[in-house]
Amino acid sequence: MPRFVDLEETMDTSDIKHHYSQQFNADLEAIRTEVLAMGGLVEKQLNMAIQALSKGQSEPAESVVSSDYKVNAFDVTIDERCTNILALRQPTASDLRLVLTVIKTTADLERIGDEAKRVARMAIRAASGDHGRNLFSQIAHLGTQVQQMLHQVLDAFARMDIDDAIEVAHEDVKIDREYENIMRQSMTYMMEDPRSIPNVLDLIWSARALERIGDRCCNISEYIIYFVRGKDVRHVGLDQMKKELSE
Amino acid sequence: MPRFVDLEETMDTSDIKHHYSQQFNADLEAIRTEVLAMGGLVEKQLNMAIQALSKGQSEPAESVVSSDYKVNAFDVTIDERCTNILALRQPTASDLRLVLTVIKTTADLERIGDEAKRVARMAIRAASGDHGRNLFSQIAHLGTQVQQMLHQVLDAFARMDIDDAIEVAHEDVKIDREYENIMRQSMTYMMEDPRSIPNVLDLIWSARALERIGDRCCNISEYIIYFVRGKDVRHVGLDQMKKELSE
Repeated sequence: MPRFVDLEETMDTSDIKHHYSQQFNADLEAIRTEVLAMGGLVEKQLNMAIQALSKGQSEPAESVVSSDYKVNAFDVTIDERCTNILALRQPTASDLRLVLTVIKTTADLERIGDEAKRVARMAIRAASGDHGRNLFSQIAHLGTQVQQMLHQVLDAFARMDIDDAIEVAHEDVKIDREYENIMRQSMTYMMEDPRSIPNVLDLIWSARALERIGDRCCNISEYIIYFVRGKDVRHVGLDQMKKELSE
Repeated sequence: MPRFVDLEETMDTSDIKHHYSQQFNADLEAIRTEVLAMGGLVEKQLNMAIQALSKGQSEPAESVVSSDYKVNAFDVTIDERCTNILALRQPTASDLRLVLTVIKTTADLERIGDEAKRVARMAIRAASGDHGRNLFSQIAHLGTQVQQMLHQVLDAFARMDIDDAIEVAHEDVKIDREYENIMRQSMTYMMEDPRSIPNVLDLIWSARALERIGDRCCNISEYIIYFVRGKDVRHVGLDQMKKELSE
């Protein structure tokens, strides 16, 4: 009864293949979900750090510092999952691009978490000091911009939306401008009142950390473009990027 | 003549396999070599930036800024090669770890290049200004330490030497201490002579960039440990790292 055996074999293999591909898709979906969970945590850390800084509260800031290990744990777990997928599933084409995009996005999210921790540390010091009010409100504004940018890029990641990713790169230009303004104003402050130097320096470090978060959101938007289009648009500049993508 | 055909097939396959594995090894060797070439370029960029800063020369600094595109080009090319290896060769075990180590190392080298460019920009501004001499010599000292650290970690990468990699992590502790000293001294400078603020801030940014390069060298040493031992030692701290590795 060779025909019967053949049929059974075919069914068996197709079952296994089907099961295999289902499991593979589940694995890929799982790392995407984990990145979004990590992103949510990092967003929360950033929001708390900015709130602490702008309201002069040390409690939320201390919670940011003590929770950073959770961000690091995500970093290690997601990396491990990705390595396992590469080793066991040997993905190609867009599946491979997804895994690489996840590895890189995770690394940037982890460092956004580090910057949030830096802001939180400054907030703890600031809570016990006397900071220039003007400069403070300007930093709060920069903070809100950066929060929105992080939210937007995580959204773009969730939907793998290329237009939103480009929008994020646009936002970064505004953030750099705001940062430069804060730097100039800080310099004036310090020169006018040298006693303010230690405090203003803390604010400068916070502004710097926020500006770097903007850069990292830009990195993530470039990975999204890489995943969707298969084009590496790092180092090409915003105008060139848009030109290449419209081709 | 089925036997003849069989034999020919066997030979063919083994030839192909041999050739395939030779080509695979050549691919892996090639990305390692490229990372070292990229590392050499980044080292050169850093050395020129530090020389420019400590001697008040703008020419080498301008060359650093205008050559940064070469570092970026390495970044893109090596990444592409790694993606191709993952897609076509589907490496596992230590081959896979090597590719992942190369991807991550390249990302950090690219950012060390960015920091060198930042130092170079400060050197260009410093060349036209009047900077505090004491602070300057201290930054030159920090620069030398960081140069050595980068050299050491590239050396460790070339030989995949775990002891050297741990040594790099030790060096970073010294660099952080030196950086803190510079920060304290800068603050005193600025408070004593508020007119020096813009210049001292440039020096602070340079010190910060150098300190960050130290952090990135540490990252690379962690990737080396991951490659050799298959252990992810990020976020565990120096003592815990040594403990885990001695187990």
